[in-house]
Amino acid sequence: MNRQELIDLIKRKKSFLCVGLDSDINKIPAHLLDREDPIFEFNRAIIDATLPFTVAYKPNLAFYESCGIKGMLSLKKTMDYLSNLKKECFTIADAKRGDIGNTSEQYAKAFLSAEGDFDFDAMTIAPYMGEDSVKPFTIYKDKWVILLALTSNKGANDFQFMEDINGKPLFEKVINKSQEWATKDNLMFVCGATQANMFSKIRELAPDSFLLVPGIGAQGGSLEEVSKYGMTKDCGLLVNSSRAIIFANSSTDFANFAQQEAQKVQEEMGKYLELYMK
Amino acid sequence: MNRQELIDLIKRKKSFLCVGLDSDINKIPAHLLDREDPIFEFNRAIIDATLPFTVAYKPNLAFYESCGIKGMLSLKKTMDYLSNLKKECFTIADAKRGDIGNTSEQYAKAFLSAEGDFDFDAMTIAPYMGEDSVKPFTIYKDKWVILLALTSNKGANDFQFMEDINGKPLFEKVINKSQEWATKDNLMFVCGATQANMFSKIRELAPDSFLLVPGIGAQGGSLEEVSKYGMTKDCGLLVNSSRAIIFANSSTDFANFAQQEAQKVQEEMGKYLELYMK
Repeated sequence: MNRQELIDLIKRKKSFLCVGLDSDINKIPAHLLDREDPIFEFNRAIIDATLPFTVAYKPNLAFYESCGIKGMLSLKKTMDYLSNLKKECFTIADAKRGDIGNTSEQYAKAFLSAEGDFDFDAMTIAPYMGEDSVKPFTIYKDKWVILLALTSNKGANDFQFMEDINGKPLFEKVINKSQEWATKDNLMFVCGATQANMFSKIRELAPDSFLLVPGIGAQGGSLEEVSKYGMTKDCGLLVNSSRAIIFANSSTDFANFAQQEAQKVQEEMGKYLELYMK
Repeated sequence: MNRQELIDLIKRKKSFLCVGLDSDINKIPAHLLDREDPIFEFNRAIIDATLPFTVAYKPNLAFYESCGIKGMLSLKKTMDYLSNLKKECFTIADAKRGDIGNTSEQYAKAFLSAEGDFDFDAMTIAPYMGEDSVKPFTIYKDKWVILLALTSNKGANDFQFMEDINGKPLFEKVINKSQEWATKDNLMFVCGATQANMFSKIRELAPDSFLLVPGIGAQGGSLEEVSKYGMTKDCGLLVNSSRAIIFANSSTDFANFAQQEAQKVQEEMGKYLELYMK
């Protein structure tokens, strides 16, 4: 999906919600566990219920890999299901990969190539290894790199705020430098909602880039602050919520609860789109 | 495998060679391609041929993920095969993962848990997200985190050498800080052989830690320099070679060629162990 299609989707659904499919086998409703593929059944129900309010889905690969081959099969089925909804949602492999050039090429093939088992629109990448570790993810048409910049977790403080002699922190260097490797049409940044006070600064560095924002919901970030300081005339935001939506309830009626939570977030987002998208 | 067992293995085999199983489906010998699982057949032949000269095997996950579910099945079969050789080799998932705490727990379960499909001794981790992204990999007994510090690729220059106001580069901060989270008994560092001039410095920061050293062979680093400046009284090195060994030849006799290359490296290593292990 290209940038304009993504913007159109956001405008049409009046939403910039990304639902994180962190479908932990130990947290999904118990009644699904006797199905042949509980994780896929869970994902399909969540997707069906939340699709009207959601512009992106983001399976975090850790929750699939932790179930081994079986988990990867659940991911494949989920991706096949999402592929049939191509115009209705943007898909993100939350994989946080990155390796030397020839190896990153393989990861890109794994998750961004139409020939592979997992034809995502975008994938998250860690910046530590620099240019040749990132560039291979930029070569697929209408596919996106989403580079970690300022993450939502406590450990973000360990290295991301490290300042150089000019007082410029590492995450700023990542945002600056990476824009030499890709453009706003194929590069987004991960910026945690728990860092909302940094969003004005981030917008100085990347005025037109899309930001993928984890950290609202269970992690406690503020959707209003993110919208106020992070939104652009094209929206420029995909705000993720995982646990607060997908695990809203664990009864047989879980999908309805997830839908209600997604709708609640979408309605708030609709308000902020009117207020701040300019 | 714990630290002492690893050291004993190195002494017994007079080798600190790690063979990188970067088993690219496009590079393995053509005659294997009509087998049911060409990648596994290739790996098994390489392992059988190189085991006497090798202390560790390191599949890079990118080469398996790029083949989708089929590739992950090849990886599982390879790990099952390696599991039967437990006392004979250390196993590393070159995965370069890392995420927020609850998610890193899932990656750790995927690759370090005896209950999972992939029961590796160690896995490589990217440090960008800090403490809570790394710690979940340290909780499994006799399992190891191998943290990226100074990588062998050109892109290493983009961020890893960024200096703080005291002139201390990022990779040094990573080495220092992470030793608050784990010990020499469960934490190693990735330090590229192409950075051999930095090994004295690295030994000041991590005098007793094992280093996983990629970059000899195809990437051009010097085994002698790495040994001279990086070796400790316990060896403290695992030096990886991938392409130069596994793709030494693509005829039906490929395994013999791989064996010869591995033996050549082992013989050189034996010499350096006598010279520098003190």
